[in-house]
Amino acid sequence: MENIFTGPTQLPTEGPARKNIEGNTPMEDVDILISNGRILTLDERDRIIQDGSVAIRDGKIVDLGEKETLQLRYHGQREIDAKGGIVMPGLINGHTHAAMTCFRGIADDMELLEWLNRYIFPAEAKNVNPELAYWGSLLACAEMIRSGTTTFCDMYIFEDETAQAAKEAGMRCLVGEVLFDFPSPNAKSPEEALAYTRRLIQKWAGDTLVRIAVEPHALYTCRESLLLDAKALSREYGVPLAIHLLESKGEIQILTEKGIKATQYLDRLGLLGPDFIAFHGVYLDEEDRAVFADRGCKVVHNPESNMKLASGIAPVTAMIRAGIPVGLGTDGCASNNNLDLFQEMDTAAKLGKFALLDPTAMSARTVLRMATCQGADVLGMGNHIGTLRAEMKADLIIIDTEKPHLTPLYHAYSHLVYAANGSDVDTVLIDGRIVMENRKLLTIDDGKVMTEVRRIAERIRGSLGMATS
Amino acid sequence: MENIFTGPTQLPTEGPARKNIEGNTPMEDVDILISNGRILTLDERDRIIQDGSVAIRDGKIVDLGEKETLQLRYHGQREIDAKGGIVMPGLINGHTHAAMTCFRGIADDMELLEWLNRYIFPAEAKNVNPELAYWGSLLACAEMIRSGTTTFCDMYIFEDETAQAAKEAGMRCLVGEVLFDFPSPNAKSPEEALAYTRRLIQKWAGDTLVRIAVEPHALYTCRESLLLDAKALSREYGVPLAIHLLESKGEIQILTEKGIKATQYLDRLGLLGPDFIAFHGVYLDEEDRAVFADRGCKVVHNPESNMKLASGIAPVTAMIRAGIPVGLGTDGCASNNNLDLFQEMDTAAKLGKFALLDPTAMSARTVLRMATCQGADVLGMGNHIGTLRAEMKADLIIIDTEKPHLTPLYHAYSHLVYAANGSDVDTVLIDGRIVMENRKLLTIDDGKVMTEVRRIAERIRGSLGMATS
Repeated sequence: MENIFTGPTQLPTEGPARKNIEGNTPMEDVDILISNGRILTLDERDRIIQDGSVAIRDGKIVDLGEKETLQLRYHGQREIDAKGGIVMPGLINGHTHAAMTCFRGIADDMELLEWLNRYIFPAEAKNVNPELAYWGSLLACAEMIRSGTTTFCDMYIFEDETAQAAKEAGMRCLVGEVLFDFPSPNAKSPEEALAYTRRLIQKWAGDTLVRIAVEPHALYTCRESLLLDAKALSREYGVPLAIHLLESKGEIQILTEKGIKATQYLDRLGLLGPDFIAFHGVYLDEEDRAVFADRGCKVVHNPESNMKLASGIAPVTAMIRAGIPVGLGTDGCASNNNLDLFQEMDTAAKLGKFALLDPTAMSARTVLRMATCQGADVLGMGNHIGTLRAEMKADLIIIDTEKPHLTPLYHAYSHLVYAANGSDVDTVLIDGRIVMENRKLLTIDDGKVMTEVRRIAERIRGSLGMATS
Repeated sequence: MENIFTGPTQLPTEGPARKNIEGNTPMEDVDILISNGRILTLDERDRIIQDGSVAIRDGKIVDLGEKETLQLRYHGQREIDAKGGIVMPGLINGHTHAAMTCFRGIADDMELLEWLNRYIFPAEAKNVNPELAYWGSLLACAEMIRSGTTTFCDMYIFEDETAQAAKEAGMRCLVGEVLFDFPSPNAKSPEEALAYTRRLIQKWAGDTLVRIAVEPHALYTCRESLLLDAKALSREYGVPLAIHLLESKGEIQILTEKGIKATQYLDRLGLLGPDFIAFHGVYLDEEDRAVFADRGCKVVHNPESNMKLASGIAPVTAMIRAGIPVGLGTDGCASNNNLDLFQEMDTAAKLGKFALLDPTAMSARTVLRMATCQGADVLGMGNHIGTLRAEMKADLIIIDTEKPHLTPLYHAYSHLVYAANGSDVDTVLIDGRIVMENRKLLTIDDGKVMTEVRRIAERIRGSLGMATS
């Protein structure tokens, strides 16, 4: 499963160390030097450096390798001791509705339509405003950082607030305003929502952390002209186009009644291409997968949401075999109900095995790559995040393995997928900035955020006639 | 959350003083008074006390109710401030192989037979001894307490060591030496293992925390005479009889080749009764369920293990509908790979919905009861644990809800099942004794335990020809 570099004979970098001792190589200054970690690079060869260091400067990884070598080569303005823990790429949450933290657990264990029509839609219609979007998104950022996520891909209403929250939290994101045929609290018409999306694209162009996508909600909520307008906007600015696709049997039924076979329809409209991201894809059949693979489309798998809403099991092993990049997402907090990608990895692996009644399916390695390097590819960010190597952005997390439930440690990948949870993340860096250290958030006042969201939740309770807490 | 040592000077004197003067009601001394918690009783009516207190004396709950009332009635030698968190019964892990923490993640993502024959069986044959059983079990206790489990039901080898570890950790347990036709590291023959079980029963008779069960491994590993001997021993001492049953298709195939229909066979041998506990029951069909319900048999559901080993989905909703008490278990750390019952509850709920493609199936309430009051019934302990009410044992846990991923809080049951994980448990009491406080274990030196298990793991690595860490 893993390549383990153990003995001195396998050290790739003994040479420079000797040179340095001889005095030929002056030490380089870097911003941060992380040491004493088991470095999981998640590169093509799954290289693991058992006792390694990572040197970071200007938001990027400058070098990584054996600790002994790097400590001779680099002087860190700031040194971080990983204390024997795991150092790995930050996790990438491919599908969220961040602000829906405000509706976390408001209604569970219900039929989808009852859940949507009686709780979620009324709660949203009455309560979603810029304030909710901002505080809900900031709470989501707090939760995501605390569970090792460094990048997320979001769809909701008032996404400028979400982008602003992510920026303040120091999180990387790809966000898009939801587009559908009916009005939203932020847009009286699809045209307004498209115009808002255009402004988002223009406002955040060139930002280090925030990228914008064009995000039609789903085929059953967007008429053809809206899909075409969305495509045009996406092409005009060269940004991704993301959509909920083939999530449930109910959706298939609606499309069938309209005479639409989803993938063929999208292909005919010219939407499918390398910038196309489908959330869910539970009912992506063999023919769909062939088209997806051929056009370079991406999928985000959301196993916990798919189970909780009883949507079904996405054929992830078949997608991967067909060559489709597949990322991992939690979906929103009303259908999961947390944003912990560690638990999502665990579920993805186990559900994938169950789906085929094959314990070798969806290995820890496969799932860990979905949440890191593959997930980065899905969001079009594979060239700068998702893998630890020189020149990549310094988005990385340190896992504290000095815990009973992570002892002993035979295989790091196994622990991360099957034994760890988000609370085991100790320190998080995004774009070279330390956003959490020893489990303390440095960019977010989480006490204040929780207070604000509780206040909003009281308003939501009132709006639905629920008893106050 | 902090325990506040309230000396007499810190007593909330005004209220009680007035009450005492007006009503002439002297305050009762109790050992511990827990206050400022949302008390989930898990009683028949799911009573929740929003701002409640629990009074504890001599290991038992004396009273519980509104904080204002109890603070007038009781003086705690020790006061615990739950700080607005959730106070609930400790979780009950119905199926573990505690000492297998030593093999946590040693091999994953493999076919069952390869996994067993190439890794687990050789690793066990070469390494399991009283030392491994003791330290592995103590590590399991540390992990279980840290994730809110207060009682576990165990099957393994050298169970006296497991009982000893649990006793030292202050955990409640039902444990039994595994019985099968072949030798184990602890017994040259089934007769020796039976004799060892008898000694266990005699040694631990009357212990407050430790109870013993008779535990034949499975129908495909125990010949008829061993099953009958196990039954006789179980009846002689009136202790439960527990067995792996109908876990996998492979098992069904072996039994079918022998001409055995499991439930009918067990019934004919006279094993089925209220003391009979079946682990797994994945392939318990309608006829089996009718027999189980009629005889009063119990089942422990292990969804994560069943998914990871691709065994299948147990028909839990149908079992419950048939009237069978069903508990929840994690199984051992080689097939899960942790002992976190919060994650297990989440998976149980989601898998149960998926199984029937019905989001209303396996509600948070159902699952939470499986892990508490129902789980207690399964182990024959329903009259003293699993519910918070007067006269029950003081086995309870406090959840810290002041966290982003548990904010806001609309429904406590929902959070516990769908959003929380074991790391959210702050304080744990078992039999009225505080065994963890502010996440610090008080009965176990977890640093030492981890060191010992790492040492054992090095030996295991060596025995299997794995590279050392």
